Amino acid sequence: MQEQLMEKIMEEVMKKVKETKINEENTEENSITIENKECGITEFVGTAIGDTIGLVIANVDYNLHEFMKLDKKFRSIGIIGGRTGAGPQIMAADEAVKATNTEIIAIELPRDTKGGAGHGSLIIFGAEDVSDARRAVEVALDELGRTFGDVYANEAGHLEFQYTARASYACNKAFKAPIGKAFGLIVGAPAAIGVLMADTAVKAANVEVIGYASPGNGTSFTNEAILFISGDSGAVRQSLIAAREIGKPLLEALGGKAPSLTQPYI
Amino acid sequence: MQEQLMEKIMEEVMKKVKETKINEENTEENSITIENKECGITEFVGTAIGDTIGLVIANVDYNLHEFMKLDKKFRSIGIIGGRTGAGPQIMAADEAVKATNTEIIAIELPRDTKGGAGHGSLIIFGAEDVSDARRAVEVALDELGRTFGDVYANEAGHLEFQYTARASYACNKAFKAPIGKAFGLIVGAPAAIGVLMADTAVKAANVEVIGYASPGNGTSFTNEAILFISGDSGAVRQSLIAAREIGKPLLEALGGKAPSLTQPYI
Amino acid sequence: MQEQLMEKIMEEVMKKVKETKINEENTEENSITIENKECGITEFVGTAIGDTIGLVIANVDYNLHEFMKLDKKFRSIGIIGGRTGAGPQIMAADEAVKATNTEIIAIELPRDTKGGAGHGSLIIFGAEDVSDARRAVEVALDELGRTFGDVYANEAGHLEFQYTARASYACNKAFKAPIGKAFGLIVGAPAAIGVLMADTAVKAANVEVIGYASPGNGTSFTNEAILFISGDSGAVRQSLIAAREIGKPLLEALGGKAPSLTQPYI
Repeated sequence: MQEQLMEKIMEEVMKKVKETKINEENTEENSITIENKECGITEFVGTAIGDTIGLVIANVDYNLHEFMKLDKKFRSIGIIGGRTGAGPQIMAADEAVKATNTEIIAIELPRDTKGGAGHGSLIIFGAEDVSDARRAVEVALDELGRTFGDVYANEAGHLEFQYTARASYACNKAFKAPIGKAFGLIVGAPAAIGVLMADTAVKAANVEVIGYASPGNGTSFTNEAILFISGDSGAVRQSLIAAREIGKPLLEALGGKAPSLTQPYI
Repeated sequence: MQEQLMEKIMEEVMKKVKETKINEENTEENSITIENKECGITEFVGTAIGDTIGLVIANVDYNLHEFMKLDKKFRSIGIIGGRTGAGPQIMAADEAVKATNTEIIAIELPRDTKGGAGHGSLIIFGAEDVSDARRAVEVALDELGRTFGDVYANEAGHLEFQYTARASYACNKAFKAPIGKAFGLIVGAPAAIGVLMADTAVKAANVEVIGYASPGNGTSFTNEAILFISGDSGAVRQSLIAAREIGKPLLEALGGKAPSLTQPYI
Repeated sequence: MQEQLMEKIMEEVMKKVKETKINEENTEENSITIENKECGITEFVGTAIGDTIGLVIANVDYNLHEFMKLDKKFRSIGIIGGRTGAGPQIMAADEAVKATNTEIIAIELPRDTKGGAGHGSLIIFGAEDVSDARRAVEVALDELGRTFGDVYANEAGHLEFQYTARASYACNKAFKAPIGKAFGLIVGAPAAIGVLMADTAVKAANVEVIGYASPGNGTSFTNEAILFISGDSGAVRQSLIAAREIGKPLLEALGGKAPSLTQPYI
């Protein structure tokens, strides 16, 4: 009987140990879903996926304006910046400038993603009034859940697809996207996958290539190949979908299941 | 009774499993505290926090001098370099040049921190005599425990504050700090936090802004915004403290508790 | 008796928990050994160590040629790219161009290694026929097991040594190695270790220094110091071995055992 008891106990224990582990992993996972914590600082707006933080400054210091190379007509600035992701934050900022009385005054792309293959981001909105700056940051943080939807990642790398029917000033500043036209972004990491996706995308539909970036050209030394396309809205989507269809099995051959970080939107 | 026994056992087991885990984590943690191991190589001086290693070369090869672009008047060099941290190593080197008959001949900043958001470092001291080079490296390694004191980090990023009442040649070479004057350094990662801290710092006291660096300007594509300040010693400290007071709750809103890596000194 | 039972159970449980852990770690480990999975995509050739993927494109899109700055005489391209490693992939590509009717048309080096201190890689072979491009990729993937042999790594950094008796076009393009001559590559990370290895290497034998790269010069901001040497085959090997003999104990003083990722070949 002691043997049986032993066995039963071992079984229970291993189950419990496993559960604890899964719970811990879930907790970690949660750290990249949308959050909104209080922190008692006036300038704090919120946080979101990708270790993204949103902040505002009502009156930027006069001296700092110069050192930061900001146009002095903007007294107030909104700031969003994340460790993981540049595309998602830029697309979110694009919606924010459409929805508010602000301008994009800086987009800078660190080599980040917390050990991943891509960029992080620092985006600054300019506004004459702090309430506009705050609103832009709020809109951008809210959009991030969506714009991370076509980011697919595993241990080996990531894929990213972005689409807008009507590009605005953030897409224009960051990607030279023609304003008002449909725009698409295709990112593959490691870069080899991005190269193949780029070729697939341009063959899949009649789109205009706006740009191409790679580890040594147009990125901050990320391990990504990136294609920027514009054109008819249907064609852009068709291109993106074709690229995704070839990219996903490739990334998964390299590193196993590569799920969406949130919910695909394209 | 068997039920009760089961329960008691499960409780004990989970306690034990947890303990083992904590011990393992502590062991990992220890790997970033100050160490000093022997390795039987004459050129080895020691190791320190941040995966920092200290080395000396008594007579640098003549050909290499040229390729490394070193001034040939320095026969001996001291080398410190770490995976994690640039500010701490530069401040430590600053103390080392004050204390020894050496010069700073190179400071290079890789994009590193082992998956973190910042820089690593490679600093080379020049000396006519190897004992001077060795002494400089020893002083620098010893200082690192202190200069990592105002580095605060969690999973989402890090903050760094440095202060010296009298900047010397390392701070001058790396940050253009005026020699002999009080100097302060403020780093926030992700960069968004650094932008807000920079604004807070310049508003908090009458300090002179020497420079500002960001992911696309003056960093090696790190996810940091960095402010360099100089001025009256009290004002510089006041600036640093104000920046720290706003930066810490922000970083903690993003990623939880962000403790000092050693002991705060400012 | 209950006490004894408890003790015995705890012992068994902890053993089992430990085993599960080791198994999990082994599974992770396996993800960096050579693999070759199917994925149902025509352009897919295979995968290998370092999260390296090999692909081919039979007819590169005409527009993309321009954006990728590829010579239009190459209709077909072969692509290899990895998250971890540049030297190993370049040396493997060097063997591939020797063995096939292809040319190296691009070598780009992201700042990668998945949180490590070095580069990743993107290498593009040009061919007039897709079967040549595919063959080059196959040869390169096959070579990677060997060319990762003198890569030694631990938590603190890595060392890399490469040797070829007869450098070909990949080594020439990436490192300016004279074609047809013996060539050697010495990499140390953190960079401080690379500096000392470089000095040791040039003193150990009569080799010609072709180049030297460091975090701020000639790398993509990696935390590496790199020496490129050429000359008599015996001298190059002697240099490499001397560098390895001093580098390994240094890296191990910093981060513990630093085993070869596969099997040393030099």
